[in-house]
Amino acid sequence: MTAKIIDGKAFAADVRARVAEQVAAMKAAHGITPGLAVVLVGEDPASQVYVRSKGEKTREVGMNSFEYKLPADVPEAELYALIDKLNADPQVHGILCQFPVPPHLSERDIIARISAEKDVDGLSVINAGRLATGQKAMVSCTPLGCLMMLRDERGDLSGLDAVVIGRSNLVGKPMGQLLLRDNCTVTMTHSRTRDLAEAIRRADIVVAAVGVPEMVKGDWIKPGATVIDVGMNRLPPEEEGGKGRLVGDVDFAAAKEVAGAITPVPGGVGPMTIACLLANTLTATCRANGLPEPEGLTA
Amino acid sequence: MTAKIIDGKAFAADVRARVAEQVAAMKAAHGITPGLAVVLVGEDPASQVYVRSKGEKTREVGMNSFEYKLPADVPEAELYALIDKLNADPQVHGILCQFPVPPHLSERDIIARISAEKDVDGLSVINAGRLATGQKAMVSCTPLGCLMMLRDERGDLSGLDAVVIGRSNLVGKPMGQLLLRDNCTVTMTHSRTRDLAEAIRRADIVVAAVGVPEMVKGDWIKPGATVIDVGMNRLPPEEEGGKGRLVGDVDFAAAKEVAGAITPVPGGVGPMTIACLLANTLTATCRANGLPEPEGLTA
Ligand SMILES: NC(=O)c1ccc[n+]([C@@H]2O[C@H](COP(=O)([O-])OP(=O)(O)OC[C@H]3O[C@@H](n4cnc5c(N)ncnc54)[C@H](OP(=O)(O)O)[C@@H]3O)[C@@H](O)[C@H]2O)c1
Ligand SMILES: NC(=O)c1ccc[n+]([C@@H]2O[C@H](COP(=O)([O-])OP(=O)(O)OC[C@H]3O[C@@H](n4cnc5c(N)ncnc54)[C@H](OP(=O)(O)O)[C@@H]3O)[C@@H](O)[C@H]2O)c1
Repeated sequence: MTAKIIDGKAFAADVRARVAEQVAAMKAAHGITPGLAVVLVGEDPASQVYVRSKGEKTREVGMNSFEYKLPADVPEAELYALIDKLNADPQVHGILCQFPVPPHLSERDIIARISAEKDVDGLSVINAGRLATGQKAMVSCTPLGCLMMLRDERGDLSGLDAVVIGRSNLVGKPMGQLLLRDNCTVTMTHSRTRDLAEAIRRADIVVAAVGVPEMVKGDWIKPGATVIDVGMNRLPPEEEGGKGRLVGDVDFAAAKEVAGAITPVPGGVGPMTIACLLANTLTATCRANGLPEPEGLTA
Repeated sequence: MTAKIIDGKAFAADVRARVAEQVAAMKAAHGITPGLAVVLVGEDPASQVYVRSKGEKTREVGMNSFEYKLPADVPEAELYALIDKLNADPQVHGILCQFPVPPHLSERDIIARISAEKDVDGLSVINAGRLATGQKAMVSCTPLGCLMMLRDERGDLSGLDAVVIGRSNLVGKPMGQLLLRDNCTVTMTHSRTRDLAEAIRRADIVVAAVGVPEMVKGDWIKPGATVIDVGMNRLPPEEEGGKGRLVGDVDFAAAKEVAGAITPVPGGVGPMTIACLLANTLTATCRANGLPEPEGLTA
């Protein structure tokens, strides 16, 4: 058997198209345009690329993109004043600060400063608490993307055995909460798990968010399981000056012979993250305006 | 093999004794007396009994107990004014409102009004979020009590397979978080779980918080496992006018022949809840005053 390879690029494009459609409908029916504000502190080149790309994708779906570039030595108070202004601005429905920030600033405090309703990265303690207690939350984009793919692949997840590898606040833990909410029996595994292979062998759904290249072996996978590989690991370059290959946490070549469906790396979960950021911004806009949740785009 | 029966009454008495010791030391060294405020709305007889008992136990460990009784028709604003006053009062380190409250009041809003630092029942969204993200939290008393018993029984829980049955915000979900924090491999099960017996058969630790009398059978238990039975189920009375027997979620008679250790019902988890409320009040007092966390009494 060879698994269906889940095309994350196409899936993400479809999510963005659905967001664009609902944005257009919202403009037409209510005259409301969702707006996403992105704050960049300093001039880290990688961060500049990400911010530019987020801005482009935001405009592509018909949303307003507001970009704020602050100098690397911006005083904390000034950054907070900007966040407070954005929190109060009814044109802004989502706010994110591009991390990492310079060391004189605290990521945790910045996240706490952003209004929970506009925290479209879903990183705040309040959103973690809402997710944990089954309330409407803003959900971290990567696990939300994984959930969308899983629902698309499996339909109703109720009663399925799901194993999450990794328990980070960014991916593993919210992923577990989402799967539990969708009525999976959820097993959380991590570096202290004694027999990871055995746990995975029972799973209908495996989500790997570890950061160890190809650690999940093909013969750990239950035939027909759906495997979502969140890992993004750069192998050492094979030749001097070269760029190492990007691989996931799963031994893709072997696993795809056993799984029912599997995400590749690259081109699997990766592209979903920005798409889900846009989905979250739309969701935040709906909630801020008392409109129904956007269909198929929320947890 | 016959299991060790974990004596919850003795265990709870020991927790209260340790709280009392640390309260006395705190008074002597710092002149600080922990204070717990309990708010009762209306005259529900069962609630009156609980509140009285909490007050007595609070004073027994040397803490201040502040009791507030409000009429059943108290306006919401008046209740909130009281909570705000208690939030601001440095003599008050813990606040709890006895539930249920009359229908014109919202439990969720009351919990949200109590300062997270004084939310000694650990019920607020912020405390759920702190627990979920690995920060210092106030943890719901019943799962905290279960954790204390498990640590006492098993020592380091790292790497053990734990299965939690039930996923309520009050017990199951925080229990899962606590076990994950202590490095267990944690499986969350519930009414949609397909093969509960099989999941439990793998578990070194079973925590049952279901509310279905004796549903966990003896032959589901792995030999030597530690079984914590949170369930409190009243069976129908055997004779007219009689009071039905109180049983747990586990078939105790059968399970104790297989388990390594097990809590009975009654006399297991039940008595731990008030003890943990006092432990949480002490913890809140330490945090409010920048003192080290009380030893052996926190998550
Ligand atoms: N595609 C995307 O858009 C996207 C987004 C975010 C992250 N990622 C990628 O996803 C991966 C995980 O990210 P993260 O932020 O969740 O990482 P993280 O914070 O480093 O967490 C890694 C988790 O994996 C566990 N772990 C480490 N070694 C293990 C082992 N040998 N067996 C089992 N578990 C092990 C750790 O367990 P302990 O808790 O016991 O240490 C930890 O919980 C990384 O490769 C990252 O680049 C991709
Ligand atoms: N000792 C104490 O101090 C103390 C404190 C609190 C509670 N309790 C007792 O603990 C028990 C649970 O309390 P709770 O507040 O957590 O209850 P709850 O909110 O009613 O939650 C019960 C959980 O059990 C699950 N469940 C129901 N039937 C099941 C089945 N047949 N198989 C597997 N799971 C099943 C439910 O699953 P779904 O989510 O799928 O519906 C739900 O998650 C009750 O007996 C309560 O009286 C005792």
